[in-house]
Amino acid sequence: MDIKAYLLKKRTVVDKALELLVPPAKTYPPKVFGAMRYSLFAGGKRVRPILAIAAAEALGANTTGLLPVAGTLELIHTYSLIHDDLPAMDDDDLRRGRPTCHKVYGEAMAILAGDGLLNLAFEVLSDPRRLKTIPAQRLVAIIREVSLASGVFGMVGGQAVDMESEGKDVDFPTLEYIHTHKTGALIRASVRVGAQYARASERRLKALTRYGEMVGLAFQIVDDILDIVGTQKEIGKDVGSDMKKGKKTFPSFYGLAESRRRANEVAGHAIDALKDFDRKADPLRELAKYIVTRVN
Amino acid sequence: MDIKAYLLKKRTVVDKALELLVPPAKTYPPKVFGAMRYSLFAGGKRVRPILAIAAAEALGANTTGLLPVAGTLELIHTYSLIHDDLPAMDDDDLRRGRPTCHKVYGEAMAILAGDGLLNLAFEVLSDPRRLKTIPAQRLVAIIREVSLASGVFGMVGGQAVDMESEGKDVDFPTLEYIHTHKTGALIRASVRVGAQYARASERRLKALTRYGEMVGLAFQIVDDILDIVGTQKEIGKDVGSDMKKGKKTFPSFYGLAESRRRANEVAGHAIDALKDFDRKADPLRELAKYIVTRVN
Repeated sequence: MDIKAYLLKKRTVVDKALELLVPPAKTYPPKVFGAMRYSLFAGGKRVRPILAIAAAEALGANTTGLLPVAGTLELIHTYSLIHDDLPAMDDDDLRRGRPTCHKVYGEAMAILAGDGLLNLAFEVLSDPRRLKTIPAQRLVAIIREVSLASGVFGMVGGQAVDMESEGKDVDFPTLEYIHTHKTGALIRASVRVGAQYARASERRLKALTRYGEMVGLAFQIVDDILDIVGTQKEIGKDVGSDMKKGKKTFPSFYGLAESRRRANEVAGHAIDALKDFDRKADPLRELAKYIVTRVN
Repeated sequence: MDIKAYLLKKRTVVDKALELLVPPAKTYPPKVFGAMRYSLFAGGKRVRPILAIAAAEALGANTTGLLPVAGTLELIHTYSLIHDDLPAMDDDDLRRGRPTCHKVYGEAMAILAGDGLLNLAFEVLSDPRRLKTIPAQRLVAIIREVSLASGVFGMVGGQAVDMESEGKDVDFPTLEYIHTHKTGALIRASVRVGAQYARASERRLKALTRYGEMVGLAFQIVDDILDIVGTQKEIGKDVGSDMKKGKKTFPSFYGLAESRRRANEVAGHAIDALKDFDRKADPLRELAKYIVTRVN
């Protein structure tokens, strides 16, 4: 299968779904909606919603009702980027090839845009229209999944440790904690949300969870590699920023070559986790391969 | 009835419930949990959870299962205080009689503590234990209620307009927008969450919604008055800060005497909304009166 064509097609579908979730920029109060849309529609790869969709497809589900739910994973991802980029946090000027939200809208509006996107995720998940395709009890489980990945036991916890580690000589377990929480938690949750939407059996949910964890780890190792070898044009954000901030990364422990080998190995584990799935899981398999060969 | 004794009793109950919702401060990563707990347990009045409980009691419900849900209203309220106090926002140094979260834990940790509390609210609402006392469909409606009040159509929208209005000569409708969204939305939602928990009929839900809107408005008018006539010791935050920032308030449009008259009138509307309720609604009635006579 042609994974690039698949990604392009799904990205268009996700972008259309997102367009329906966020009110137009001129909605009152316009500045905060403008800031939310600015960051959300800055050309993201939509990896998380696509993982949710591909997981549901792997189980043979019709994904029409999943699209707004998958969209909330991108709302959460974007909220975290906006807050992480703030001057008090990672202080980044570039994101997705454009000036960061606070550079354009100011810090106050960037904080509020992040808060707005985070709340919007739960507004969308609890919208009564969701109940047309998702039984209430399963919807509650999905909300639980998303909130745990987004909060202190997930992304917020990872970012907190990342902040506390700045300038410190962190050990590898601490780096692993940051990786699995800051990036891994939402990627894992994305796969699980798609699986739960598609009524996965316990056994299949477990396999897909393992897939999600391995893909998340591979994704983060490659992110660390790209921060060193990527170009600003390709990755759309400042390169070398980890090193400049003295941040430990996967390559700073294992070097570039070993990091690349590890990323490929971990992507292999992700594919192995799907051994009991038929060809409907091919997009997931190709996604795992794509994630380690990507240049942005 | 003795409303002060009622408030004290309920506050103790709410504080116990909150204690169970937030992990101990030494949970890893400790700094962000410390920051969350610092702001949450700073001696808040717990008005929002108590309104939810009193609304459910007015309908004769057993409120044991409501307590964690009511607690989430305080998590959301505290998140909004932490973010609103940030230097990029209202830049306040004092809150609930103590230095604000960012003054103690730094800006990065304050942003993350706010994000953590907001996410925690939805983690608690979607916890499978909630389903023991709340049917899934009603729980989804409650999550919708809370998220709408908290997000861009509620508190975030109100704060955004408040930020955009700084230093501008805002008109009264804009001030009303700020009031109804920044403060009013969550107070209204608190009453409605209690009502929905207690399976309120459409008619009773409508009456309680009106009550919540009027109480929210009275609360905000009194807040504006206290910013002028209160003492720092009493209200636990900087006084005169609205005026210093050139912020328009209810008294700046109508003067102190007329604002006081209006607050009493609006509290009267709140009580009138409960005319079809029996004595079980007395705490709500007394709460409306208390809100306009409070000194903090």
